Amino acid sequence: MTTDNRTPVTILGLGSMGTALAEAFIEAGHPTTVWNRSEGKARPLVEKGAVRAETIADALTASPLIISVLSTYEVTLQVLEPAGAALAGRTLVTLNSGVPAGAREMAAWAAARGALFLDGAIKNVPAAVGKADTLLYYGGDKAVFDRHEATLRVMGGHTVHLGAEPDLAALYETAVGATLLPALVGFFQGAALVTARGLTASTMVPYAVKWLEMIGSVMPALAEEIDSGDYSRPFSSIGVFYDGLAGERGLDQEANVDTSWQEPMNELLRRAVAEGRREQSISALIELLRK
Amino acid sequence: MTTDNRTPVTILGLGSMGTALAEAFIEAGHPTTVWNRSEGKARPLVEKGAVRAETIADALTASPLIISVLSTYEVTLQVLEPAGAALAGRTLVTLNSGVPAGAREMAAWAAARGALFLDGAIKNVPAAVGKADTLLYYGGDKAVFDRHEATLRVMGGHTVHLGAEPDLAALYETAVGATLLPALVGFFQGAALVTARGLTASTMVPYAVKWLEMIGSVMPALAEEIDSGDYSRPFSSIGVFYDGLAGERGLDQEANVDTSWQEPMNELLRRAVAEGRREQSISALIELLRK
Repeated sequence: MTTDNRTPVTILGLGSMGTALAEAFIEAGHPTTVWNRSEGKARPLVEKGAVRAETIADALTASPLIISVLSTYEVTLQVLEPAGAALAGRTLVTLNSGVPAGAREMAAWAAARGALFLDGAIKNVPAAVGKADTLLYYGGDKAVFDRHEATLRVMGGHTVHLGAEPDLAALYETAVGATLLPALVGFFQGAALVTARGLTASTMVPYAVKWLEMIGSVMPALAEEIDSGDYSRPFSSIGVFYDGLAGERGLDQEANVDTSWQEPMNELLRRAVAEGRREQSISALIELLRK
Repeated sequence: MTTDNRTPVTILGLGSMGTALAEAFIEAGHPTTVWNRSEGKARPLVEKGAVRAETIADALTASPLIISVLSTYEVTLQVLEPAGAALAGRTLVTLNSGVPAGAREMAAWAAARGALFLDGAIKNVPAAVGKADTLLYYGGDKAVFDRHEATLRVMGGHTVHLGAEPDLAALYETAVGATLLPALVGFFQGAALVTARGLTASTMVPYAVKWLEMIGSVMPALAEEIDSGDYSRPFSSIGVFYDGLAGERGLDQEANVDTSWQEPMNELLRRAVAEGRREQSISALIELLRK
């Protein structure tokens, strides 16, 4: 490991993701400063070679590149505010989750303090940090991205600049993330059904994973339908989903599983059929989500 | 192509999946009989070498192995009922979607007519029929499965016998399929968000696909939590999801997207936190789905 020509990096926030990022920078030979509201989480990193900053001001002045992995934009602003002046001329990268409005507020706050700014998102789990195909994407000034790209790549090899607008990562983060809770609750409902029969949830995992792959494989076609606005040659029609509703009615009784959380989706199907969209692609549901 | 030692097969129902299955059997050299309520769909298959059965009775007597790909168990029963006696001694395989109760009813009906029976599901799209990693699974008599396994494998190389109970495929089909509509509506919500900014839905597809892979990658751990009932070492906690709700409130305004379909899921999170499950794994939501 050589640290001679590596950009010093400060990591704010040592949850599981912040800790994994700090470890990746230490391993890659970057002088790494860490800060966390509670002290204990820094200790294992200090043992590996990180420097623990006592105060947020110390953390910001330690490095030209500050990577914040706090929980929300709100928390990030609260933490940074007292030492905001120290950010002048430095680059702040926020990786917390949040909505586009939060990223825009963050960007304005950073600009007012003379900081360069990128907002990004890491689209994977802490264990995947540093791997070649781990994806991170960023919105904000391209010149800032270019200057730090090699350093950012330490966190994941698949590093993408989405565009100059500082809320683009939050936009895609929010857009892409919208499948997470629904897919998980769907999985839990399935697991409830299987376990009610005395089978383990683990037995359905290989099939559930394949099923997600299938869903992913149809996304390009669905996106093209959405982009063209042509729902007339459906891969899978609204009618097929609608006709499936009748069969599902017996499901609660079958295994004492509460499926009522799906009701608004079923209602979308009913409304779509009532609007004459039965033969259209399932992707036409987007028209009902647009207000 | 040789047809000498290949089991003759009858395909009932020539939607896109039935057609793809018939094509696979023709290509694999099986004498293939096809039947569809409307005549037109059989013609291209007849040109490729299939025989069109005029009546359902002709379709059933043409082959020892009947594969039904009609829309539902209800429709399948309606179609088969008039010629049910012709099934005696033959093997009926149903591949329609439906709930376990439907499969049990179908199995009882087939048994009463002296037919051997398997209920299965094909977990992929018509274009994937016949490929080595295309998954089909079956429930029902293992001896019947063993006798026809090589023939069933023509439809997809990944062919699995789940167990002797004839509703197991429908059980897993229903369980695994519970992620489909929720994940799709989540994707459409994301697409509505991205397109409201003048970006195409296609730009989010690579990220959305990666995201589904990430969801799939955590399913084994979530299933283990469910199987052990130990939610105390969360990969991702209910609190993390709950805290995210506040940020999402601005989303409808951001892009005029209706996110109200997610409300029952948000309510599950609120109830879980109210029950003291904040620090538990997100998989503990299954306890709220179990009635």
